[in-house]
Amino acid sequence: MLIIGELINCTRKKVGEAAQKRDAEFFKDLARKQAVAGARMVDVNGGLPDQEVELLSWLVDLVQGVVDIPLCLDSADPEALLKALPRCKQRPLVNSISDEPARWAMLPVLKEHRPKVIALCLSESGTPNGVDDRVATASRLVDRLTAEGFALDDIYVDPCVMPLATGPHSQYLLAAVGQIVARYPGVHISAGVSNVSFGLPLRKLVNETFLTLLMAHGLDAAIVDPCDHQMMMNILAAEALLGRDAYCKSYLRAYKEGKLAEVAVA
Amino acid sequence: MLIIGELINCTRKKVGEAAQKRDAEFFKDLARKQAVAGARMVDVNGGLPDQEVELLSWLVDLVQGVVDIPLCLDSADPEALLKALPRCKQRPLVNSISDEPARWAMLPVLKEHRPKVIALCLSESGTPNGVDDRVATASRLVDRLTAEGFALDDIYVDPCVMPLATGPHSQYLLAAVGQIVARYPGVHISAGVSNVSFGLPLRKLVNETFLTLLMAHGLDAAIVDPCDHQMMMNILAAEALLGRDAYCKSYLRAYKEGKLAEVAVA
Repeated sequence: MLIIGELINCTRKKVGEAAQKRDAEFFKDLARKQAVAGARMVDVNGGLPDQEVELLSWLVDLVQGVVDIPLCLDSADPEALLKALPRCKQRPLVNSISDEPARWAMLPVLKEHRPKVIALCLSESGTPNGVDDRVATASRLVDRLTAEGFALDDIYVDPCVMPLATGPHSQYLLAAVGQIVARYPGVHISAGVSNVSFGLPLRKLVNETFLTLLMAHGLDAAIVDPCDHQMMMNILAAEALLGRDAYCKSYLRAYKEGKLAEVAVA
Repeated sequence: MLIIGELINCTRKKVGEAAQKRDAEFFKDLARKQAVAGARMVDVNGGLPDQEVELLSWLVDLVQGVVDIPLCLDSADPEALLKALPRCKQRPLVNSISDEPARWAMLPVLKEHRPKVIALCLSESGTPNGVDDRVATASRLVDRLTAEGFALDDIYVDPCVMPLATGPHSQYLLAAVGQIVARYPGVHISAGVSNVSFGLPLRKLVNETFLTLLMAHGLDAAIVDPCDHQMMMNILAAEALLGRDAYCKSYLRAYKEGKLAEVAVA
């Protein structure tokens, strides 16, 4: 399970304020904290108005100075990506291309640098409403990317998580994930899980449960808060139960290292 | 989601000792506690050697005296069932018939009293090892029961949970559940979840996560400990996310009644 730490996101108020001030210590701390908590990749979003091109690269350098895991570049700006991609010490993931005409403008940059790529199920018609439109958009994205030379193993389909409070989106999304996995064996499935709980009480509970449900259908990557201990415990247990952790090795190691116990009390 | 409280099980040491003494208060308390915690049915297992015929009926009367929910009669003894079934005030569930010749001896009693019935995926060859044998045994059971006049809505297929510590059973079981649900739309899926964690540390975590994974594949009933608060919260969230709780009504009601908050702290 690829856990992508979501906390360095400058579109969030507090993080954006730190970015305005170029508060390096703030971001180093956020990066370290996520790596220690178990993130295997750090998402970096430098989306401040008129600053993204410079800010994204600043963040890339900063984060790579303190943690030794790859980055997920959260930007749809070809110029920002063009500047940031060559600075990455390890092969990054780009979040995200979609089936919108403006986003396909990223393709030349992606082809030049060949990062892994998140393919978000958004199309010209906007956000998806059901199962079929998600599967259709995913198929267009995967077909086009593979035609452009991207391996299935380098593509992370994001089925586009929408708030449960605004309609029965999550059940359609789960069904769509199952169909996408069946249609493209070997493709990865990723999701920005926390959108699902927007507007509901006890958001962490909803996020944690949704992630487990998604894993049951084949999700193997997620942009989440790795400091959510209950969620990290659920992931370890789910990996073992889904046969992705032979002999429960990681589960038992985490337990022996006191990581599960520590969390169970939290 | 049909939550069947598992705590009144005389094959457990402490419960068996209380049963030997016919400690009525002990059992009344266990029954009340489970109903308050959210059980919608109480499992009653009177499996003490040579006492089951008398003990099962004693427990049925006792539990019905204090809680107003139906019972799940956990017995494969036709004589015990023959005596206990007519005492049930609400239509019970019988746990369980299987595809073993000795268990089919229960059929005349079941046909006479028409309870709902759990069909456990055990066959003459013993416990299941994979996906196909589970699906095959489930199919034989469902086909025979429907041929005998049982409606799909009255059948709860139990895919036979085995300890994860002894092999990669859980992943096969999850796949089997998906196939059984697809083959028999309308049939119910139930499971005795806690077996899965036998021999592993932090059993509750494993049970809770497994239940959520099972729900993703169609499980809609479970024999569990309803006093496991985290699990009950997960179930509420999963029901909403799976589209089984329109407008998150039950989730929001539980939150407003303080049930979720109370549990989140526990």
